[in-house]
Amino acid sequence: MSASRVQDTLRDFVAEREWDQFHSPENLAKSVVIESAELLECFQWNGDHEIDRVRDELADVLTYCHLLAAKLDLDVDQIVLDKLGKTRAKYPVETARGSSEKYDRLPD
Amino acid sequence: MSASRVQDTLRDFVAEREWDQFHSPENLAKSVVIESAELLECFQWNGDHEIDRVRDELADVLTYCHLLAAKLDLDVDQIVLDKLGKTRAKYPVETARGSSEKYDRLPD
Amino acid sequence: MSASRVQDTLRDFVAEREWDQFHSPENLAKSVVIESAELLECFQWNGDHEIDRVRDELADVLTYCHLLAAKLDLDVDQIVLDKLGKTRAKYPVETARGSSEKYDRLPD
Amino acid sequence: MSASRVQDTLRDFVAEREWDQFHSPENLAKSVVIESAELLECFQWNGDHEIDRVRDELADVLTYCHLLAAKLDLDVDQIVLDKLGKTRAKYPVETARGSSEKYDRLPD
Repeated sequence: MSASRVQDTLRDFVAEREWDQFHSPENLAKSVVIESAELLECFQWNGDHEIDRVRDELADVLTYCHLLAAKLDLDVDQIVLDKLGKTRAKYPVETARGSSEKYDRLPD
Repeated sequence: MSASRVQDTLRDFVAEREWDQFHSPENLAKSVVIESAELLECFQWNGDHEIDRVRDELADVLTYCHLLAAKLDLDVDQIVLDKLGKTRAKYPVETARGSSEKYDRLPD
Repeated sequence: MSASRVQDTLRDFVAEREWDQFHSPENLAKSVVIESAELLECFQWNGDHEIDRVRDELADVLTYCHLLAAKLDLDVDQIVLDKLGKTRAKYPVETARGSSEKYDRLPD
Repeated sequence: MSASRVQDTLRDFVAEREWDQFHSPENLAKSVVIESAELLECFQWNGDHEIDRVRDELADVLTYCHLLAAKLDLDVDQIVLDKLGKTRAKYPVETARGSSEKYDRLPD
């Protein structure tokens, strides 16, 4: 399994239904936040959660992230590693270790 | 590159900084939505967007999705495909094709 | 002080700056969620919060709610009371009292 | 009608159902963003919207804003005006007029 195989499968799914017409980057960004809020709803009143519900909601967030990445020709794994490189430089181990004060500002 | 290699890299990054103590599933779910809204901010006033800014914000959303998935022992690629299977059953090609009416209800 | 006086003040502020051109209902709805996520950021890693930061972020959420309401000719106080009437009917006191099970579904 | 009468009505509604136990500031902040995303869902695929649906979702956002404000002893109208004062100082009319460039950074 790889991210690119997931994206191929999603692309076929969308193409078969002719839904690409709805998938502007802006609409996909809206969809990411809408689904993220449904994920948060699993934790609305306390930290308990039904794992099956969390799994499905997290899958929805990831689905729209993949669709947006594909639309913009971004590699989902590469952009995470690239951003991590920036964050690494910003929060070196020696100063950031265990610090919630620093952590409160993380990540930008 | 694979999702599991990304997760290994993220795990090391978090462990070195002793930040795992902040990463309850609930806090990670909050973080996913906070970063998603920063992604949406790239499109706040119109559909134009700076690709570098979108790339970084999408990376932040994906980073927290990975951290949440790792915390709950979920495979990010597998859960997307599993959810797609459910959505496929719910919106068969013949009835869903090109329909924005159906689409307005999608995905639950 | 009343909601309508707040709206008049906001309207003048926006008009002076000729910002109404950016305020489609869709853009204002995006802005409400963007500001809401900044409010949530005050509570990202725990329940503690700096009251001055919460006050400013909550004000931003309310500001965009007012602007959206004004744009759609909705009375902010009236719509809250109207919706409360519906919720009241849906969750009568005798069945809903102290129930987190019911509460998990609230409000739709 | 005034914001304080709305808050009194909401307080009675919550008290009758003994739901105050669920209403930590953190949970209310989560609820504001969850409801905001439902508001955004009215505009997910385009700028069209059903006014009745928008009205109900905006009412839900405002309801949780009121509950959070009441919990923290904040006056919803006053904090909006106070924040507007700060924004006014930051974006004087002469430089901000009609500028989407400035606007893209607004409001912090």
